[in-house]
Amino acid sequence: MQDPQKAADELVFAVRDLCLRGAMIDTNVQDRDLGDPMFDPFWEAAQNLDVPVFLHPFSLAPVRRFNRYYLHNVVGYPFETTLAAAGLIFGGVLRRFPRLRVVLVHGGGFLPYQIGRFDRAFTAREESRMLSTEAPSQSLRAFLYDSLTHGPAALRFLIDVVGADRVLLGSDFPFGMGDPEPIRAIEEAGVDEETRRAICITNAARLFSDP
Amino acid sequence: MQDPQKAADELVFAVRDLCLRGAMIDTNVQDRDLGDPMFDPFWEAAQNLDVPVFLHPFSLAPVRRFNRYYLHNVVGYPFETTLAAAGLIFGGVLRRFPRLRVVLVHGGGFLPYQIGRFDRAFTAREESRMLSTEAPSQSLRAFLYDSLTHGPAALRFLIDVVGADRVLLGSDFPFGMGDPEPIRAIEEAGVDEETRRAICITNAARLFSDP
Repeated sequence: MQDPQKAADELVFAVRDLCLRGAMIDTNVQDRDLGDPMFDPFWEAAQNLDVPVFLHPFSLAPVRRFNRYYLHNVVGYPFETTLAAAGLIFGGVLRRFPRLRVVLVHGGGFLPYQIGRFDRAFTAREESRMLSTEAPSQSLRAFLYDSLTHGPAALRFLIDVVGADRVLLGSDFPFGMGDPEPIRAIEEAGVDEETRRAICITNAARLFSDP
Repeated sequence: MQDPQKAADELVFAVRDLCLRGAMIDTNVQDRDLGDPMFDPFWEAAQNLDVPVFLHPFSLAPVRRFNRYYLHNVVGYPFETTLAAAGLIFGGVLRRFPRLRVVLVHGGGFLPYQIGRFDRAFTAREESRMLSTEAPSQSLRAFLYDSLTHGPAALRFLIDVVGADRVLLGSDFPFGMGDPEPIRAIEEAGVDEETRRAICITNAARLFSDP
């Protein structure tokens, strides 16, 4: 069984003693949603240390249809990122820890395109308002996103909805599903020089700077 | 156990004898992927009858984290639509039945935003090329999509990547997660009059016209 306080202690050790600049964690903890209040000690430590936390999907929900065509990766990983973001949003974590810096990989999974559906649930369904107090789209800019959308139209859309200051160059290196030429992807999106510089250099420099 | 031939026969009966103009089916058959060649008799009948098939998600993969915040609907339904589309694409159904007209609801689930990831898998992974012979993005315009994205930026993005001739006005009526003012959503997206007319009128008129 995972011990959230020990995870928080390990994060403090990694940052204070090992001088690491952040942490990367899975998108769920033994199939438990990251927004569960039981994990608050970890998020509190990350906020207090002022270091970013990358969510990188690895453990998957047991979906039988993932077993073909590499779908566990193609659909499963962005699905996991989306569930993790949903947990942090609807679970109220981003409200309880407003200075958290959480990075969603693979262009934020499916979140940016369907954030309107999240808002619709917040309006229409009591279950969605249990632990959160504002529309999910208000949290869109609380996350950071990597640029790994594998397409110029999707990347322009991402920048459009979350803002150029929230997007970081993403390669997914060393994984086979990564983009071998991530900088070219930024250029192919046809962004202006200021946006290109923010995504390729300054956003990451700010994120990993000394706390 | 589902009998694909009987499902095909029922579709023929519904269209020929009952004069229905199409069918709506679930996004999976007892957790089986719709692209499985075992279902070819059904797709063949739909193509021969020249009637559209709507995929509307209902039965869900057993994901424990769906049980909070209405996520079974918010994330689960578009996820099911995405898995169904992935099955039809990677399973080669759209290649075997090129005149099929399949409608994806809720703005196509997560497909439009992450279609580049599908293409990346097709390039990078042999598993993804087992039954399909062209990049998944080549199939994007083989589907039709409803407009129910719950946001103007997402709707503009959808129209941008699939084309205005592939988008139909969607309300999701009578469900609570629907949009009570779907025409206003089209107008708020700021599309031109030709696009508005296509989405609100002519695309559907063409889709449901006499075969």
